[in-house]
Amino acid sequence: MTEAPAATDAVRRHDPELRGFASDNYAGAHPEILAALALANGGHQIAYGEDVYTEHLQDVFRAHFGPRAETFPVFNGTGANVVSLQAVTERWGAVICADGAHINVDECGAPERVGGLKLLTVPTPDGKLTPELIDREAFGWDDEHRAMPQVVSITQTTECGTCYTPEEIRAICDHAHQHGMTVHVDGSRLANAAATLGVPFSAFTTDAGVDILSFGGTKNGLLFGECVVVLNPDAVRAMKHLRKLSMQLASKMRFVSAQFEALLSGDLWLRSATHANAMASRLARGAQAVDGVEVVHQVQANSVFARLPHDVSERLRKRYRFYDWDEPTGLVRWMCAFDTTEADVDAFVAALTEEMTAHR
Amino acid sequence: MTEAPAATDAVRRHDPELRGFASDNYAGAHPEILAALALANGGHQIAYGEDVYTEHLQDVFRAHFGPRAETFPVFNGTGANVVSLQAVTERWGAVICADGAHINVDECGAPERVGGLKLLTVPTPDGKLTPELIDREAFGWDDEHRAMPQVVSITQTTECGTCYTPEEIRAICDHAHQHGMTVHVDGSRLANAAATLGVPFSAFTTDAGVDILSFGGTKNGLLFGECVVVLNPDAVRAMKHLRKLSMQLASKMRFVSAQFEALLSGDLWLRSATHANAMASRLARGAQAVDGVEVVHQVQANSVFARLPHDVSERLRKRYRFYDWDEPTGLVRWMCAFDTTEADVDAFVAALTEEMTAHR
Amino acid sequence: MTEAPAATDAVRRHDPELRGFASDNYAGAHPEILAALALANGGHQIAYGEDVYTEHLQDVFRAHFGPRAETFPVFNGTGANVVSLQAVTERWGAVICADGAHINVDECGAPERVGGLKLLTVPTPDGKLTPELIDREAFGWDDEHRAMPQVVSITQTTECGTCYTPEEIRAICDHAHQHGMTVHVDGSRLANAAATLGVPFSAFTTDAGVDILSFGGTKNGLLFGECVVVLNPDAVRAMKHLRKLSMQLASKMRFVSAQFEALLSGDLWLRSATHANAMASRLARGAQAVDGVEVVHQVQANSVFARLPHDVSERLRKRYRFYDWDEPTGLVRWMCAFDTTEADVDAFVAALTEEMTAHR
Amino acid sequence: MTEAPAATDAVRRHDPELRGFASDNYAGAHPEILAALALANGGHQIAYGEDVYTEHLQDVFRAHFGPRAETFPVFNGTGANVVSLQAVTERWGAVICADGAHINVDECGAPERVGGLKLLTVPTPDGKLTPELIDREAFGWDDEHRAMPQVVSITQTTECGTCYTPEEIRAICDHAHQHGMTVHVDGSRLANAAATLGVPFSAFTTDAGVDILSFGGTKNGLLFGECVVVLNPDAVRAMKHLRKLSMQLASKMRFVSAQFEALLSGDLWLRSATHANAMASRLARGAQAVDGVEVVHQVQANSVFARLPHDVSERLRKRYRFYDWDEPTGLVRWMCAFDTTEADVDAFVAALTEEMTAHR
Repeated sequence: MTEAPAATDAVRRHDPELRGFASDNYAGAHPEILAALALANGGHQIAYGEDVYTEHLQDVFRAHFGPRAETFPVFNGTGANVVSLQAVTERWGAVICADGAHINVDECGAPERVGGLKLLTVPTPDGKLTPELIDREAFGWDDEHRAMPQVVSITQTTECGTCYTPEEIRAICDHAHQHGMTVHVDGSRLANAAATLGVPFSAFTTDAGVDILSFGGTKNGLLFGECVVVLNPDAVRAMKHLRKLSMQLASKMRFVSAQFEALLSGDLWLRSATHANAMASRLARGAQAVDGVEVVHQVQANSVFARLPHDVSERLRKRYRFYDWDEPTGLVRWMCAFDTTEADVDAFVAALTEEMTAHR
Repeated sequence: MTEAPAATDAVRRHDPELRGFASDNYAGAHPEILAALALANGGHQIAYGEDVYTEHLQDVFRAHFGPRAETFPVFNGTGANVVSLQAVTERWGAVICADGAHINVDECGAPERVGGLKLLTVPTPDGKLTPELIDREAFGWDDEHRAMPQVVSITQTTECGTCYTPEEIRAICDHAHQHGMTVHVDGSRLANAAATLGVPFSAFTTDAGVDILSFGGTKNGLLFGECVVVLNPDAVRAMKHLRKLSMQLASKMRFVSAQFEALLSGDLWLRSATHANAMASRLARGAQAVDGVEVVHQVQANSVFARLPHDVSERLRKRYRFYDWDEPTGLVRWMCAFDTTEADVDAFVAALTEEMTAHR
Repeated sequence: MTEAPAATDAVRRHDPELRGFASDNYAGAHPEILAALALANGGHQIAYGEDVYTEHLQDVFRAHFGPRAETFPVFNGTGANVVSLQAVTERWGAVICADGAHINVDECGAPERVGGLKLLTVPTPDGKLTPELIDREAFGWDDEHRAMPQVVSITQTTECGTCYTPEEIRAICDHAHQHGMTVHVDGSRLANAAATLGVPFSAFTTDAGVDILSFGGTKNGLLFGECVVVLNPDAVRAMKHLRKLSMQLASKMRFVSAQFEALLSGDLWLRSATHANAMASRLARGAQAVDGVEVVHQVQANSVFARLPHDVSERLRKRYRFYDWDEPTGLVRWMCAFDTTEADVDAFVAALTEEMTAHR
Repeated sequence: MTEAPAATDAVRRHDPELRGFASDNYAGAHPEILAALALANGGHQIAYGEDVYTEHLQDVFRAHFGPRAETFPVFNGTGANVVSLQAVTERWGAVICADGAHINVDECGAPERVGGLKLLTVPTPDGKLTPELIDREAFGWDDEHRAMPQVVSITQTTECGTCYTPEEIRAICDHAHQHGMTVHVDGSRLANAAATLGVPFSAFTTDAGVDILSFGGTKNGLLFGECVVVLNPDAVRAMKHLRKLSMQLASKMRFVSAQFEALLSGDLWLRSATHANAMASRLARGAQAVDGVEVVHQVQANSVFARLPHDVSERLRKRYRFYDWDEPTGLVRWMCAFDTTEADVDAFVAALTEEMTAHR
């Protein structure tokens, strides 16, 4: 691809050098991803997933997740989660998850409203479930008054920026399977987990017993696009119908699939995730060195959770947009992306230092 | 934008010069659209619609649909329809539509399952509703045994390739409003209608009394992306919540919005639609000239419906993929896209001629 | 039971000798049914269906429907239908039914809204489906854009007062099963069908291949109560959960079950249905003899459909409440119940005659 | 009413003198309720709520709840709750409730599945919410990622057998209204609360600011039947449609309404509730006097929660059926009903004493 881009009536309206720490989806697309779109463009391809890119994508994912994996591109993370969870529940099913799980707190009730799912939530100290925590809601399968627990959903890396080990996931899967439940992983940041753990994806998914997976692309440099990856095809049916009725079927699917090929057929996914994680570590180290700033949770992925005085948050936020995580206690979240630079981090830490100094 | 595209691990897997007549979403993206993505890339922008591109998009749509229009980018057409219809119905509401409407036959029950909507369907000769046809289902508002008709949904251009005049839409809107109902337009091919009618969008939407609109981008050259356009803001509330709970909220929304800016801020939408329509007319003329081929419905947009002997369909389909519309009667559909060429059409008509000759 | 009823603060507010022809659910409860309630009262019984009356009810229904029948009491007909249909469909399933089916026109969209079901409707001349009519919607099982036809639902006797023969039902079941679909019968007036046909229930349900059944009690003399009867247990799972989540689980279920025992363990069901049917026949004969009154559809159960001049309807309705069936064409419905008397019918025919005379 | 009951084919199958402590819905119907059914029987009455008994019922409830109250009879408690909550939420709405609320733990997900509702649950020590506890979930109304809190649902008396004071409910209502939310009361045991508090229903509902109410009948001596009572008609619309689409519309509604007339037009409701409460107090006193038995929660209604050694529970349960409330900690629930006698209680306490003695 060496053709120059076409002219367009659209206009650049933003500064492409300005970056912050609010979210990894504030970042744009990785240039290699954009290049893949151009490659996949032109000519006609069968719509709705029968194109050659989506066909090839099966092999791309199987190289990472094993020969039984079946991959279904979708639009976004909520869609991936709700399609996945419907696939492993019946009309009477319930989902055991952490009370801070994205599916519980950040999807406007889509699991309940679109999927008709009941969430059975468990408080966790760090976003991670364990067999013991699961047992608080894993009972009553024969009791018709209770929504029937049929799947355990965990997030890897978690909403707290923590990371399950392969052994922890295996223990959860074994426990769930012993009770006749399946396991779903919300992997919107699965690449960050693999980068942290230093193992292949399969080590903490397929090989650990996970049944179905929401695999994230957007937060790791795609324009848009996630995949539902079925690791245990015996556990699901009619995935294509579920995707369509959940309004997650892209007509020009080649453009989702080509992005994932660019991400996963080489090491782009790992380069990007490793970099984002490293930037978060740098940020955590910098922040921890500032007197009065408390970093909360282990920093195992691309997010940093810190506790700040309210006045400091307020002033710092005028310089950099970021989110409160628990407003009353002053807990905030800072995220790094594939495009965060060391200079970005250092400038942010300097700003933090200034505002903390102003506090004292 | 003069930078060359980056290298990528993705590989071109298809022939960018091969085109057919199966669907306008078999086409890829218009090069100007791709260029807009590159412009919008880089740096950080607030996710979920607070970016500068989405902000500007409000003006882009207002230029076409009037100063009250409110625009909500979504992922796909089913999503746009189901979000729109939920916005103008209550839990007890029903939608009057043609029995061949996309929402009734091609969305795997998403309106019912995701939106909890009841569709009250009416047979039509050509895909077009009229006040008289609407009246077959427009009754019983006080009868709790009946799902309450609250919105009339029409498709422009219709699933049959026909086109409502502005007057016809106004008559429908007046009739619906008199009965306390709103009007939704499924405009996945609205640009083709404007091109056929030779009038601005507003002439047969805002000015005709339409309340809410699914505005199509994908079938007119976008990679993906549609917009819900609220023309009558008094009729709706909480659109952002409805979009999110319907799993149609893009995190990196700038990439949807920038595509629409490229499409709508100049005349790309009109160039593309006019061309596709012209190719369909050329195809219809060519096909009609072939003895034994019957073109059905007026060809007012980019699709041609024709009746063929079954053996001819079968052989022709080995050369060109296309869809049956009514298999028992031999009715098939051929569609042209923004990238269909005259040579494409002529080659197809030649192939059709050959196969019809073989029939006799 | 010889105890006299207790005193109560409630007051009789109506004339227990006044009856009309509007609906069989305008009637009250058969005295034998009330007596059964008193028998089942007193003492404590396990709630939610583990009582001795519900336990015994299994045998009562098995005597009628064969040894595999499993019976689930519910509150009302809409509930029975929606629970039944959910039991034999997946999230992606659709129901083929007549366009005049109660589930399509009289349940305020409950099948869609509560069950997430798509109804694929077929016009019929007399409320009865046939294999040929079913085929108009029985296709596209692999097409994810289409809601997947998984069950055929028929009504016996139909909403038009017509009655399927056992052979007709067998043909439908064979056809449905050949296509991998199941068959549901909305049997809110199943007793009327058995009375007309002069055969046991099983002859046109279990033995004909029906998979699941809504068995009506209310319209045949119960205070309230219907049963979902699973005839093919291989086709369903988790019925108890489906009933509960559909809000159709009675806590004091003994009171539903005892009513059904009173209805079905002897011949009360048959006495009542035969009588109601006979009254409808008498009414039809009387009406047909009136010049200018057209009786429409075969009168095979307890309803009569007739076409009247509008002015006659209007005047007659001031004397007897009844429903329009198709207002524009003057089609009205008259229904008889278990308690309709010959004198009631004769008085009504006399009134009809008077009003028709006034018309001319 | 002095007529003797009719003969019936149904057979008494249980001992009407045997009572236990498992649940107030193990009891049958109060004889005065049964008598009301007989009064309401006979003749024809308009179905679906236009009968004279339902018409009169409006006045019966208005006498208790004030002149604006609108009453909608339904079948059961889950139905009453889900209809009520739908009435005061939009498609994007959420319900703040205690995590032990019946709607959260005992309705098989019906609020989520039928109503599309998101429940935002808060842990409570004793089943009672407070403004402070509500605030844990009362935020984020403008955040489309969050299901929008629109209603607070409390249970009176609570699932723990505790009772809100009128002042506590007023504080909750004031707080909810200040935030633009409404208040729903799950009053399946509202009569027990009025009996405990010694005030009219209106004192802790209408006058305290409650907007909508599920009024329980079944647990206070009805065969079946609850009512949705709208106290603030400005907050709701289309109640009749909501009831029908939720499959809670009884055709022979006179039989629900007549029961409520018998319950509420005199003092039957109060006699029954006062008696059940008194039996629970007697049971609590008796149990507390047994060494090693810990009574948990204040006994303010008709239930007693106690902590027992597991072996004692096991043996006692062979003599009397009752439910575990928290199996790991040995917490069990005992309930009294309108028909529980002092002798029943004393025999149970004696049995408990014996089994506790066996434990030591």
